[in-house]
Amino acid sequence: MRIDLNSDMGESYGRWTLGDDHALLDVVSSANVACGFHAGDPAGMLRTLSNAADNGVCVGAHVAYHDLAGFGRRFVDEQPADLKADVMYQLAALEGLAASVGARVSYVKPHGALYNRIVHDERQAQAVVDAIVAIDPALGLLTLPGSVVGEIAAAAGLRVFREAFADRAYMPDGTLVPRTQPGAVISDVDAVAARVSRMASAGEVVAIDGSVIPVAADSVCVHGDSPSAVAMARAIRARLDADGFDVRAFAADAV
Amino acid sequence: MRIDLNSDMGESYGRWTLGDDHALLDVVSSANVACGFHAGDPAGMLRTLSNAADNGVCVGAHVAYHDLAGFGRRFVDEQPADLKADVMYQLAALEGLAASVGARVSYVKPHGALYNRIVHDERQAQAVVDAIVAIDPALGLLTLPGSVVGEIAAAAGLRVFREAFADRAYMPDGTLVPRTQPGAVISDVDAVAARVSRMASAGEVVAIDGSVIPVAADSVCVHGDSPSAVAMARAIRARLDADGFDVRAFAADAV
Amino acid sequence: MRIDLNSDMGESYGRWTLGDDHALLDVVSSANVACGFHAGDPAGMLRTLSNAADNGVCVGAHVAYHDLAGFGRRFVDEQPADLKADVMYQLAALEGLAASVGARVSYVKPHGALYNRIVHDERQAQAVVDAIVAIDPALGLLTLPGSVVGEIAAAAGLRVFREAFADRAYMPDGTLVPRTQPGAVISDVDAVAARVSRMASAGEVVAIDGSVIPVAADSVCVHGDSPSAVAMARAIRARLDADGFDVRAFAADAV
Amino acid sequence: MRIDLNSDMGESYGRWTLGDDHALLDVVSSANVACGFHAGDPAGMLRTLSNAADNGVCVGAHVAYHDLAGFGRRFVDEQPADLKADVMYQLAALEGLAASVGARVSYVKPHGALYNRIVHDERQAQAVVDAIVAIDPALGLLTLPGSVVGEIAAAAGLRVFREAFADRAYMPDGTLVPRTQPGAVISDVDAVAARVSRMASAGEVVAIDGSVIPVAADSVCVHGDSPSAVAMARAIRARLDADGFDVRAFAADAV
Repeated sequence: MRIDLNSDMGESYGRWTLGDDHALLDVVSSANVACGFHAGDPAGMLRTLSNAADNGVCVGAHVAYHDLAGFGRRFVDEQPADLKADVMYQLAALEGLAASVGARVSYVKPHGALYNRIVHDERQAQAVVDAIVAIDPALGLLTLPGSVVGEIAAAAGLRVFREAFADRAYMPDGTLVPRTQPGAVISDVDAVAARVSRMASAGEVVAIDGSVIPVAADSVCVHGDSPSAVAMARAIRARLDADGFDVRAFAADAV
Repeated sequence: MRIDLNSDMGESYGRWTLGDDHALLDVVSSANVACGFHAGDPAGMLRTLSNAADNGVCVGAHVAYHDLAGFGRRFVDEQPADLKADVMYQLAALEGLAASVGARVSYVKPHGALYNRIVHDERQAQAVVDAIVAIDPALGLLTLPGSVVGEIAAAAGLRVFREAFADRAYMPDGTLVPRTQPGAVISDVDAVAARVSRMASAGEVVAIDGSVIPVAADSVCVHGDSPSAVAMARAIRARLDADGFDVRAFAADAV
Repeated sequence: MRIDLNSDMGESYGRWTLGDDHALLDVVSSANVACGFHAGDPAGMLRTLSNAADNGVCVGAHVAYHDLAGFGRRFVDEQPADLKADVMYQLAALEGLAASVGARVSYVKPHGALYNRIVHDERQAQAVVDAIVAIDPALGLLTLPGSVVGEIAAAAGLRVFREAFADRAYMPDGTLVPRTQPGAVISDVDAVAARVSRMASAGEVVAIDGSVIPVAADSVCVHGDSPSAVAMARAIRARLDADGFDVRAFAADAV
Repeated sequence: MRIDLNSDMGESYGRWTLGDDHALLDVVSSANVACGFHAGDPAGMLRTLSNAADNGVCVGAHVAYHDLAGFGRRFVDEQPADLKADVMYQLAALEGLAASVGARVSYVKPHGALYNRIVHDERQAQAVVDAIVAIDPALGLLTLPGSVVGEIAAAAGLRVFREAFADRAYMPDGTLVPRTQPGAVISDVDAVAARVSRMASAGEVVAIDGSVIPVAADSVCVHGDSPSAVAMARAIRARLDADGFDVRAFAADAV
């Protein structure tokens, strides 16, 4: 049995540090590396890329809206041509930096508000897909199952990978429980580890109403931006190892 | 006889436009394209790169300090590791964007305060050279004859090209008359055109004291950020054409 | 008869210039001065404020989303607390700079995407009103008649002023014809000048379907970001002068 | 006996947090609050100002070069007119935000590279003094004893306050041991607390060569950007309390 764990990395900026990249590189098989638009200065990007390469962790481009103050978490109503160019710039920069330290970018995971927006916004989704095709059509796309951007990417010939979330509750229809609702985020470490193991082995999860629903995941997202998040990430990895999983990058074959 | 004319381009940013790139592309053989740190948003960079490719104009990376408010004209005392990474990021981004529109980056011309600083600052000069080597050692470097960065680049195996300035007065020792001194900038169009022609044919120029000095130039810089600058650039090109020069990119053989 | 003409000013940034503030200061009675978030560096803001004071032109704060790359023309989904603080920061900065050169900020005109958003978005409208109240409740608010932000501001005790647009076509219901529709922008200088005169004297305008509708305007917006815009602004002013209007700031009584 | 302790605060930015402001507000009597140019988003500035007011801590403006990526720690060769305007903008913004939450800015402490530069650079020092005079001549200036900016500020009629550093070693001539030299920073908590107590009571400190030198300090700077820094700050405060000092803002009389 094989599963991938991914996490956001390289989200420091200048004097400000965020997340424990060092700890996470022992846990995950895929690293979503910030590209400078929501986080990530060039020197920090180089360090993250180099560390990922040293640890054999697969690299993805964590492209975002151009909004440091908002950390890419605010929707920005960019025109598609501008968004396409912004994403191309980020992809090109990360690919070049990666190559300089012996790493290689294998996939794209849009960040924050952009990730959520292109689940349903066709124009911005098309812009992101166009950007990937223009810079490197060998890059895969990591997105929610059923997203608009996934459909557009597949139609454009890109490889599309499905993401699940370790600590998020699911609605019976397979969508995520909105963060504004009670129970949206699961904080019990053992429960989360068990959920991930079940997702990875059986392709299913218990939804918030108690029903068992299918969750097809090529990769499971774990967080590392707080001490408790790192502890949870480690617990998930330990459980998967104990359960005999091969934790390996979904995009590994392309590396 | 062969000479190259270069000019800064792509220095608009969002709503703000600067320079007449369209007019200049008919005049010059090399375009120094802004990379987003002192000017140049990604969508504008793509347009400039595409236009340069359409006009057969060679592309250089106009890398700069990260300072939009100062337009890269203020020295920033960056640590070498940070400066190296900043330059790498810009080179990688521009190369990737260029490739997507069928253009190719052939050389690096540092911009503004960075250009001037690394004429004599060894640490920052080394950082810029290290960045070029790390991203693409096939890139040439365009700099002042006798500059520290030129020496370091040559020692690192990079191709180094010498730049002269169309409208700047020279000291008897071959350095530029500082802008703070009277006569530093020559505004007579015909006089400037004649100077460039003499530089290109005889490798010499009349210094501010009337003496004739050698000026070895692989490329001559012309400006295009005002209507009068465009008029001067056109006059220079017309004079060179009339005098039978082959106006061609110094880096053309590498394209 | 009395009317106010307002225009955006101070929208240069560092090396980039935009608009002909000098020409406009002879035309308008109110200047919407950029506050640094979509345009306007501090040194330029000081120049604009000083020039406005010298010309007896009333100053408004042209507050915006924090988005230089997008020039404040893209909706940014900011949380109300962040938006309120961003607007407070801009108001405070502009008021302090104004006081230092003998000018005084009399009103607030939100810029671009923020202006349009708070015509209908209650949460962001409330945030802008809260910011004004927190920094200086003596400031007036200039907005579209019927806007949500106007209602909220009036309820909060702020003075609310209604704005009309010189060169925009109106729908029969008094809203603006969207820019995406044909005929949305009127380019005939004499026609525009006549419209403004009629708005100011009779409080009415001919809508796009030919019907005559009421347009209650305390101030009419003119543009100055191109040579033709300046020519139109001058024509409007000349017409108003010829028709005997007293062109005077709506907020003048508060100065 | 009376002494002031000051510390940098409000240096978070958007998603990134830095320093333990909450802990420091129990320790210090003066808070240097970031103004948005090296750190500090508006919403965070408001929180810091509000917390300072609640704790009766005096507020200073921590003005800086406009350089988020460099956290204001890199010298930027700004022209005096631009630097003056940048500092004015920051002072005006902070004063306005402070007033809105019942706080008041009492002094200016330049940050990082600007602090160090204007110890000796007359042009930039003059620009900072001009900015203070233009916005609010009642503001004091906190700087190194003997600095050029202190002399210029005093000549301009500003109140000037002298700063000492808790954990930095001194040269026999009273200047700081450069950070690049061994022994420049003292990490022993008790030793630092004892040094501060001696500075505050006897106006003297043991220099790096063992000699006792005078250190006239109106305020002593303590750090809070790491757990060990907070521990040291608390130890210093405990020692001063135990030794019977009145820890009170140097600018308190103006509040």
